[in-house]
This record gives sequence, C-alpha cells and structure tokens, in this order.
Amino acid sequence: MSTPGTPPPEVGVAVAQVALAVGDTDGNLARAVAAVQEAARRGARVVVLPELLRSGYVFASAREARGLAEPADGPTAAALTEVARRHDLVVAVGVAERVADGSLRNSALLLDRSGIRTVYRKVHLWDAEADVFVPGDELPEVVTTPWGRLALAVCYDLGFVEWVRLIALAGADLVCAPTNWPGAPRTTAERPMEVVHVQAAAAANRVFVAACDRTGPERGVTWVGGSAVVGPDGRPLAETPDGAGEHVLVARCRLGDARRKATSARNGVHADRRPELYAGLLTR
Amino acid sequence: MSTPGTPPPEVGVAVAQVALAVGDTDGNLARAVAAVQEAARRGARVVVLPELLRSGYVFASAREARGLAEPADGPTAAALTEVARRHDLVVAVGVAERVADGSLRNSALLLDRSGIRTVYRKVHLWDAEADVFVPGDELPEVVTTPWGRLALAVCYDLGFVEWVRLIALAGADLVCAPTNWPGAPRTTAERPMEVVHVQAAAAANRVFVAACDRTGPERGVTWVGGSAVVGPDGRPLAETPDGAGEHVLVARCRLGDARRKATSARNGVHADRRPELYAGLLTR
Repeated sequence: MSTPGTPPPEVGVAVAQVALAVGDTDGNLARAVAAVQEAARRGARVVVLPELLRSGYVFASAREARGLAEPADGPTAAALTEVARRHDLVVAVGVAERVADGSLRNSALLLDRSGIRTVYRKVHLWDAEADVFVPGDELPEVVTTPWGRLALAVCYDLGFVEWVRLIALAGADLVCAPTNWPGAPRTTAERPMEVVHVQAAAAANRVFVAACDRTGPERGVTWVGGSAVVGPDGRPLAETPDGAGEHVLVARCRLGDARRKATSARNGVHADRRPELYAGLLTR
Repeated sequence: MSTPGTPPPEVGVAVAQVALAVGDTDGNLARAVAAVQEAARRGARVVVLPELLRSGYVFASAREARGLAEPADGPTAAALTEVARRHDLVVAVGVAERVADGSLRNSALLLDRSGIRTVYRKVHLWDAEADVFVPGDELPEVVTTPWGRLALAVCYDLGFVEWVRLIALAGADLVCAPTNWPGAPRTTAERPMEVVHVQAAAAANRVFVAACDRTGPERGVTWVGGSAVVGPDGRPLAETPDGAGEHVLVARCRLGDARRKATSARNGVHADRRPELYAGLLTR
C-alpha cells in the first residue's frame, strides 16, 4: 500500500467502452467481463466501465427500471469481484441500485479482490433519470489502493465544477467516472464538450480522470462514445478514436503525480483558491 | 438598453491581441488604440484588450511597477474612453492600478463613451505578481450595456472554476477577460489548456467568455497567444490561428443567449447545482 514518502507505482488505467442494451442484463454483464479481461491482458490494473452497466439506460418506465435494478452486492458486484480477484484489479462500474428503503439510485461501485470498497450515489441527475432515481447526497469516499487514491463520480456529476473540486480536495488522485453521454457519436477531430469538461476538471485540480462512456444505440438514443483517460495537466493520455464503437483504452498513469498541486514555484491549483471569498456566495 | 422581454441584439465582440513591451507606455497605448479602431471598423462594439496593457507585465522590480502604474482614471482610461466615444464602444482593459492607499492592483476597467463603468481588481494572482500587487477581494460587478450584461475577470482568475461560477450566477452574459498567458506560443492544432479552461467555464455556465491574450516576447517571457471568444456551448466562435502574433478577432454574439441556462427540457447548468451539498465543503 502507498505510505507517506513512498509514491505509488505506475499503473495501467483502462476505460472499457462497451455496447449495452437495456434489459439484456446477462449480455451486458458478459460483454463487460470480456472487456475487463481484455484490459487486464493489456496491462490494466484499474478498469472503469460505463454507467448503469447491467440494466442499460433508456428505461421505458420506472417500473421497468425497478425490475432491472439490483442491490449494491448483486450480480454486477459478484461477477466483477470474481474477475477482479482473478486479475487483481480495481473496477469501477455503474449500477441501477435498489436500496433498503426501496428507492432506486444511479450508483457506482468501486470493487477489488476483496469485494465492494465503496458505493457512491450520483448526486446530479440528468433528465428522465429523475423519474426513476433518487439523487444521492454524499460526497464520494476516497479509497486507498496500491496505486493511489481513487474516488467515483457518475456522468453528469462531471459537469459540476464544484463537485469535482470537492472530490479532489478530499484527496483523490484518480476520479473514476462511469458515464453514459447521450449525443451524436464522435465524428470529427473536435473533442466532445463532455471531454473538454473532463480536461478542465482534471487540470483545475491536477487529478487524473478516467471517464468511461458507452456505445450502441438504445431505443433511439445514441452516445458520444468519448471515453478518455486525462492526466493532471488536462491532456488526454488516451482517448477514443472517431467512431470507434466498442473499445478498450489503456493509459499508463503515475497516479502519485496528482499529489503535486504546484503549477509554478509559487502557485498551486488548490493553494491559490480564495475560499473565504467563495463562502456563502456559492451556496445561493 | 436591454429591458425584460427585449432580448439584446447581436453584437460584434472583439479580442485585440497586441504586442506590448514593458515600460513603453505610450507605444503600448498607441498600439491598443489602433487595434480597437480596427475592431470597430470590422463591426465590433465590445472590445477586450490584454492584462496590464500600458505598463507591460514582466517588471524587474516592484519599484519599476510602481513607476508604471496609474490611477484607474489615468491615461489608459482617458485614451480608451476617447476611442470608445468616437465609435460607441464598450472596452475592457487591464491596468496596473495605483489606488488611494498607495497599493498596486492588477485591475481591469470596463469603460464606454461615458467613461469608466466599473473597476475590478484581480483576485487570483500568478507567481511574481504577488511581489507587486495586492490581490482584490471583491466579485466583479455586472454592468448592463445595450448588448447584454458584462463582467470582468483577469487571466488566472479563469482557472478558478468557483470564480467564473460566481460571476455567472451574478448574471453576467459575457465575461470580458484581459489576460497575459505566459507560455509557448501556440504552434499546434491542440488548443492551449488556457482556452480549454475557458471553454469549460463557458459551457458549465452557458455564458460567453472573451479572453484577450497578448503577444510579443518580453524579458525572456513569451505568451500563449491564445485569444478567443467562446460561446455558451463552450465552442470557440473565434480563436487565434497558430502563431498569429498581433491579431484582432471579431465574433458575432447574441449575448442574450446566455440567459437560457437550460440544457434539456428538464435540466439547466445552474438549476441542477446542489448548493446545499457544496456549502461548507468548498470553504475549507
């Protein structure tokens, strides 16, 4: 494990952009397991999968969503813990979570060979998600791994600069973000704005961000297909080629670099904040 | 003037990226006036100039800076008010301001035919600026003009997502940002990270941002030369071509578009914030 004075070693961080189909729970999970295995073969030890992986995303009704949801320790966690154990991986994945009070949450799990390390419930819900899910109200936990400190975020959360800031201030080296970015598939060299947000969030905090999008049309919805791993300078270390469809990207990352917040001999992305001026104003 | 129910008309917004030389106060001001006149000829009615325009940036000492500073209503304001009056312009410009208590501020002025409309003092100081300037501690004022609501920010302020958020929440349609981005001049199609920050800040708030960088080496320092006008979708409406040097860009902007914060029938960049969760956390 990382200890003070011992920077964590370099690690392969993968984003596994898979094609999913709402309701095809077994097929979705099988495709994810295959992609995680490919990532492991290619040297990844941290693998990020899309949002709402096993259920799919475009629910016809809240009732359909309920039928596709699972507890945090359900089939998704079981299948991915098994593959994490086999390859000694850390895996981040989105799950339609049914919690004890009966509500559904758009959640993400971080798991490793020991099972679930943390559950995060998406705080910023997009569009019709609010018909199905109750938003979370807690900051993601920062989990220490042999390669660095990892935290979760989900999709639309990345558009809220305050949220990524808080996650970084809490000590994350890498933000693992399962996403489903609805939109037209990437067809030009112009980066999707979703990736631009990730770049700015990474650079503004000098953290790594691994955002895993999905692919495959679903009930008329298409996806940006913009999965990327971005470094603390805001530059993509790996990004999905135009129109790549299903695709596993692996980037070599020294996550400990995220602990150097300095941008000059006298400046730092966090040290130069003026929180006394932001107080109050940001809470309106 | 814009009134409720009367969206402001389209306006040409210019960024005038000029070459400056520290200490050449008359030359710097003359070049700026010429660039503003060019912008006006090309249809601009709002013109943004670089940070610390008349003084230059790379001071050898605080003493040198003091000698080059001026009161807010000094020669910079006088010369630019004159040209603003002639062409009916709004002009944003950076000035090394000497205030009544004797301190120096890295300030920006917004002025029009009536003179100075507002003074803003840079809150986030970069590197050796702290040897010369006292940081400001107030949010920029939002100024109503015939074309929309304008506010100022200066250079490194744009890296602080909280600050741009606050300016947008205060009602700005366009953030006018005099900048001096030290760095290598742009030589590839990859956008400077400074511009990526501007893109994300614009899109995260659905505001326009006009950032005016400078050019011309100064005491060994070069500049990114990345001036750009970015729209509320985060896409550059005008950006400096590779290695363009001195350059005036004009973008047609309907600044009232910044008042539509919706991103779907049910989502908005400000409405979807969760300020109750950010409270306290962001002030640490």
